[in-house]
Amino acid sequence: MTSSLARKLEELVGRGKVFSSDSELLCYSYDATPLVSHRPEAVVRVTSEQDIAAVLELAAQEGLPVTPRGSGTGLSGGSVPVKGGIVLLTTAMNRIIEIDADDLSVTVEPGVITADLHAAVEELGLFYPPDPGSMKISTIGGNVAENAGGLRGLKYGITGDYLLSLDLFLIDGSKVHYGTKCVKDVAGYNLTKFLAGSEGTIGFFSKIVLKLIPKPRTKKTFLALYDDILDAARTVSALIARRIIPSTLELMDSVTINCVEDHVHIGLPRDVAALLLIETDGHPEVVKEEAAGIEAACTASRVRTLRIAKDAKESEELFTARRNALTSLARVKPTTILEDVTVPRPRIPEMMETIREAAAKFSLRIGTFGHAGDGNLHPTCLTDERDRDEIHRVEQAYDMIFQRAISLGGTISGEHGTGITKSKYLPQLVGPKAIEVMKRIKAAFDPEGRLNPGKIFPEPME
Amino acid sequence: MTSSLARKLEELVGRGKVFSSDSELLCYSYDATPLVSHRPEAVVRVTSEQDIAAVLELAAQEGLPVTPRGSGTGLSGGSVPVKGGIVLLTTAMNRIIEIDADDLSVTVEPGVITADLHAAVEELGLFYPPDPGSMKISTIGGNVAENAGGLRGLKYGITGDYLLSLDLFLIDGSKVHYGTKCVKDVAGYNLTKFLAGSEGTIGFFSKIVLKLIPKPRTKKTFLALYDDILDAARTVSALIARRIIPSTLELMDSVTINCVEDHVHIGLPRDVAALLLIETDGHPEVVKEEAAGIEAACTASRVRTLRIAKDAKESEELFTARRNALTSLARVKPTTILEDVTVPRPRIPEMMETIREAAAKFSLRIGTFGHAGDGNLHPTCLTDERDRDEIHRVEQAYDMIFQRAISLGGTISGEHGTGITKSKYLPQLVGPKAIEVMKRIKAAFDPEGRLNPGKIFPEPME
Repeated sequence: MTSSLARKLEELVGRGKVFSSDSELLCYSYDATPLVSHRPEAVVRVTSEQDIAAVLELAAQEGLPVTPRGSGTGLSGGSVPVKGGIVLLTTAMNRIIEIDADDLSVTVEPGVITADLHAAVEELGLFYPPDPGSMKISTIGGNVAENAGGLRGLKYGITGDYLLSLDLFLIDGSKVHYGTKCVKDVAGYNLTKFLAGSEGTIGFFSKIVLKLIPKPRTKKTFLALYDDILDAARTVSALIARRIIPSTLELMDSVTINCVEDHVHIGLPRDVAALLLIETDGHPEVVKEEAAGIEAACTASRVRTLRIAKDAKESEELFTARRNALTSLARVKPTTILEDVTVPRPRIPEMMETIREAAAKFSLRIGTFGHAGDGNLHPTCLTDERDRDEIHRVEQAYDMIFQRAISLGGTISGEHGTGITKSKYLPQLVGPKAIEVMKRIKAAFDPEGRLNPGKIFPEPME
Repeated sequence: MTSSLARKLEELVGRGKVFSSDSELLCYSYDATPLVSHRPEAVVRVTSEQDIAAVLELAAQEGLPVTPRGSGTGLSGGSVPVKGGIVLLTTAMNRIIEIDADDLSVTVEPGVITADLHAAVEELGLFYPPDPGSMKISTIGGNVAENAGGLRGLKYGITGDYLLSLDLFLIDGSKVHYGTKCVKDVAGYNLTKFLAGSEGTIGFFSKIVLKLIPKPRTKKTFLALYDDILDAARTVSALIARRIIPSTLELMDSVTINCVEDHVHIGLPRDVAALLLIETDGHPEVVKEEAAGIEAACTASRVRTLRIAKDAKESEELFTARRNALTSLARVKPTTILEDVTVPRPRIPEMMETIREAAAKFSLRIGTFGHAGDGNLHPTCLTDERDRDEIHRVEQAYDMIFQRAISLGGTISGEHGTGITKSKYLPQLVGPKAIEVMKRIKAAFDPEGRLNPGKIFPEPME
């Protein structure tokens, strides 16, 4: 069955790029976020800037919403077409256009897979640090739209920190170019940085230029097991007090550790309260010295066991637990609701305590893991969306967790974006005036509110 | 003589904070930018958020323009009140509110002097890298407004890269807060990063939170003298090819070198074509290894003489030439017009050649220095604003230089902002659609166009 919209789209972009069967529309009705889905009217996998402009112009004529989508790995519902209309897929625009090793930049189309970019630049001794958990599937366009973080954020920053320049299409089909390949460019407003984290609501990216840095020479990985989660938090503070900024500093609590052990059987003790995965990278001497500091900080914080990887293979083994955290938690129950609160690092113990209290108060199973070095925690509720009563309690628990994060000077999202799932907390975090200003900016780009509608703001746009 | 406006302002904020005599208004009619000045009607040195709100509310009632100003060291006319009205001075709001050594952040009022912030955090083993040339006078508020760079930008990035959170007042007197102390915060639009480089046209900052990093342990400084400026440019490429990112990589041409030697007599040979000031910092082993790489890169690029600082004192001596570049150039003729083009690093030779050609073609004396590691060059014209014919030729020369920077994929400003002096080139750089969008964003914050009017955009706001 081909709808009249699909036929019109096929006339514009050609056959094989437009999807409109029931099963296809179902596939693009959700992303990696639970509990939110909505079918689009058609899906277009664009292969060129001409395609993008043509689809946007048709959408303008027909007054249709347009929702950009990469690999659909988002965790706040950012690519769910909640108002229907057209889903615009970037995945076929996946060329690495240029790696400029002389000027340390890379130019890509939006559909390039993050891990493919890593591999391509690392072959040349270069490094693109942002490594979101979904990096083997996620696209650079999606990473920019959500300003994605990752395990290396503490030392190296997040996607927006590497963004130099963007070509993007506005909802009216016009093309705009911001930024240059220059690492210093302060001409006009800083729209490039603004677009990092704009969640697909401002424009559709067609070309992205990212900064590269030299690849760290070596690294060393540690797995620290604790009898008390507070000791893990103390290690984070102790490292910062020693002025050590590890490249990775990840936390997992006992719920997560046990789910991982159930799933991948890597021999983690069942009775530990928490673990930290710590990695230092860089020059061999720096790594050696920081490794000694990491050992000392762990010991002073009463670590039970400290495993140190002897080589790259052992390092990968130590990462296994962390890399399997979400998958392992997701196996336990039909529905996994992952959140993304961030607090100033010294407030991690209080945040962990609130998560524990919320789980107890609302009789829920919540496993927490995340980027302790950034104060960015992922409390993950193992539930079943068919159990309406439990889902209601999940909402109450997250409400308690978000309120606490805000009151601790933290934020409702460290790396997943606001999307649909956190929009109701945004006004409390930033205040009504900031919401008003954000809406006015949105309207400046998209007066009819047709580009990825229903995101970020708690109410539909006026 | 106290104007009626000044009396009203005094009633609001109290005596001693309002300036309106002829000589006072003259003082605040210009900043460090030549050829642009305009007297305000009154100047208010606010000391509290209450003062800010009160002044903005009065300005709203009277329909007056308001221009924020720090120390007035800007080089694109950003703090010149070109439409009159009130100048709002931040300099009395100069408290360092908190240095959070446990969470690596610092909270300041906008009037804190950049170098004072450096000193305060370095005492605790912490580091705030951005170091604009004016850092001994410039304020953090001004640095954020202009997204200021500096000598350490290549390795460490610029002001916006360290900006975590802002409190600001909109033109209507309402207060907005963006961001948190969290290094990862992707809730809502990224307005914090957008405000870096907003040139005082979006809001008046009242509180600024900046990220800190551990202070580098040691450093080593080099001064490399060349017979051919192309060899200096080759050294920049050779360093990047070796994956060495120095903390400082500064260029000076022969015009600048001779002016410095005339001024401070440090024994620089008169016949060298260019010099590079290079510094590596960090762990002693890294510094040692990079130092060897720097020597090798300079030698391979036919350096004439390579001076290596033995200690901190000698390092300071080697910096003397670069630190005195602008002052030395400024002594030669009554008017010094400094520009700020940036090109991709591999295009530096072409940019230098165009600057040389422009000087020859329009019979001008132009000295060039700048941040070669970032491709950010400051061609500096030594002229006399009373000589209208020469000033016309200066404009033609800069026109040629800006056109060339844009055609090389560069930008019209690497760190000084667009302000008044570069606004006419912005449409060519970003295109009419981007200008339209930027104007709409400006209007979203400031519908009447009263906050720092006449900046960034080539025409007055509609």
